[in-house]
Amino acid sequence: MPLLVVGSVALDCVETPTAKRDDVLGGSAVFFSYAASFFSPVKMIGAVGEDWPGEHTTLLEKKGIDTSGLQTIPGGKTFRWRGRYLPNMNDRETLEVHLNVLGEFQPQLNGSHRDCRFLFLGNASPAVQLNVLEQAKAAELTVADTMDLWINIQRDELGELLRRIDGLVLNDSEAKLLAEDENLVRAGQKVLAMGPKFVVIKKGEHGAMFFSEHEMYVMPAYPTAQVLDPTGAGDSFAGGMMGHLAALGRFDAQALKEALAYGVVTASFTVEDFSLDRLEALSRHDLDRRLADYRRMLTF
Amino acid sequence: MPLLVVGSVALDCVETPTAKRDDVLGGSAVFFSYAASFFSPVKMIGAVGEDWPGEHTTLLEKKGIDTSGLQTIPGGKTFRWRGRYLPNMNDRETLEVHLNVLGEFQPQLNGSHRDCRFLFLGNASPAVQLNVLEQAKAAELTVADTMDLWINIQRDELGELLRRIDGLVLNDSEAKLLAEDENLVRAGQKVLAMGPKFVVIKKGEHGAMFFSEHEMYVMPAYPTAQVLDPTGAGDSFAGGMMGHLAALGRFDAQALKEALAYGVVTASFTVEDFSLDRLEALSRHDLDRRLADYRRMLTF
Repeated sequence: MPLLVVGSVALDCVETPTAKRDDVLGGSAVFFSYAASFFSPVKMIGAVGEDWPGEHTTLLEKKGIDTSGLQTIPGGKTFRWRGRYLPNMNDRETLEVHLNVLGEFQPQLNGSHRDCRFLFLGNASPAVQLNVLEQAKAAELTVADTMDLWINIQRDELGELLRRIDGLVLNDSEAKLLAEDENLVRAGQKVLAMGPKFVVIKKGEHGAMFFSEHEMYVMPAYPTAQVLDPTGAGDSFAGGMMGHLAALGRFDAQALKEALAYGVVTASFTVEDFSLDRLEALSRHDLDRRLADYRRMLTF
Repeated sequence: MPLLVVGSVALDCVETPTAKRDDVLGGSAVFFSYAASFFSPVKMIGAVGEDWPGEHTTLLEKKGIDTSGLQTIPGGKTFRWRGRYLPNMNDRETLEVHLNVLGEFQPQLNGSHRDCRFLFLGNASPAVQLNVLEQAKAAELTVADTMDLWINIQRDELGELLRRIDGLVLNDSEAKLLAEDENLVRAGQKVLAMGPKFVVIKKGEHGAMFFSEHEMYVMPAYPTAQVLDPTGAGDSFAGGMMGHLAALGRFDAQALKEALAYGVVTASFTVEDFSLDRLEALSRHDLDRRLADYRRMLTF
């Protein structure tokens, strides 16, 4: 079942304690799409500038991702992010952000996009997310990401979004900020009370938590000895999760839990190398094998 | 099967963002014994001063804990610790430590102690831990805790201890320090290579990791909405774990994994109130019910 994602497409500059990469392929829609494409057909909507290397589009298309919604803005420049990871490889600081074409981007869905029953709204302003939601008439499962910026400056619009989507995926620090509560269990419950049917709190190297009316659970991250670059882990998590749900064509409690586990496992590969490098070398079999290992770890 | 623990007995002063308690019952041997006593008979060895309130001993004895190894040092004062928790309720700073009677304490095992087949060496200097190990001739499963102080100033003695015990339990920051590696998977493997048959890394609110020659896994903490005082969580974890193993009378891979789960669940109760307050109100049935809930959370 096709899955639609609207989000950022970026050129990232990443610094870690041991390495540095400039202008590598990144952005929420890119990591999400690539991760989800192991499970389900994916259609991507985003904007790039004239500096965008065509080979990146080729890479996505070779994976079967429908990039007809990837728009090149004449005279524009691609969104850029520069960040540095601390020695613990979990915390990071943003050194530079250049919105460029993302600043004015108003996503337009074509007919094939409008038919998608599964929709992921990557991090963007709640106003833009609401606009996409309005267009996606056939969407049966709508899940959004957000960030601290929107919680701080567009809380009302975010509140409106939360009343209209099925699921929200956000970081632990964002959940604490949104709920104004330092305890993650209470924070998750408070965000749930704002409207969505379920909430997923991403805890980076510590895994994820799930909240719905009837359920609350925690899943640890899959432990990996090689963490080269955590950029895109959260979007890969969401991609694995939504990809699995779209493949199943359902989103009951059992499907959601297995989807979270696939999200955890997909993200654990992403962090093992820069950009999409590790995912490019990956097969669906690798994902399933690690999922089986993860399931074994959690069985006692 | 009786379980022997040697460790600290303390009067704690605890400050959290919302409350403050002075001179409450604490110490590694106390939290460990009380937690373990839900599963197995426990014998405790420790030292206190003349300021020690007799009611604390009564509380332990009412739970069936054998306190014949609790020695009152004439003219001495009980070990005291004062700490403050940060708003995240996971990190803390130590404000004051007064070793008092703990400074000179050399534990002596009596005949009934020497017969114990399960031994836990609570945090103490590796020299003291080695001395106890030497006396505990019947011990078939020996597990030790340690801390950053000993890693920094008695690394050689700690190395000797690691070659002679079965299991080591330590915090994530201590594992990184001991292994000189920021990645916990690699750190755990490096500590394992120092000698013990298994290593458990405690990650506070993020759970625990297990390492042995054949296995590596991670278990999340049981999520609780009420965290009043995390003091003693790590010792309660070890107590639940060792108590379950002593009750089973075996320590194969399956027993160890279930024991870790009981450790997680026991610790999740400890943090819900100050000192032993939550554990005092607890029944074995409560532990088993939460264990079942924890198992359900991790099943997908």
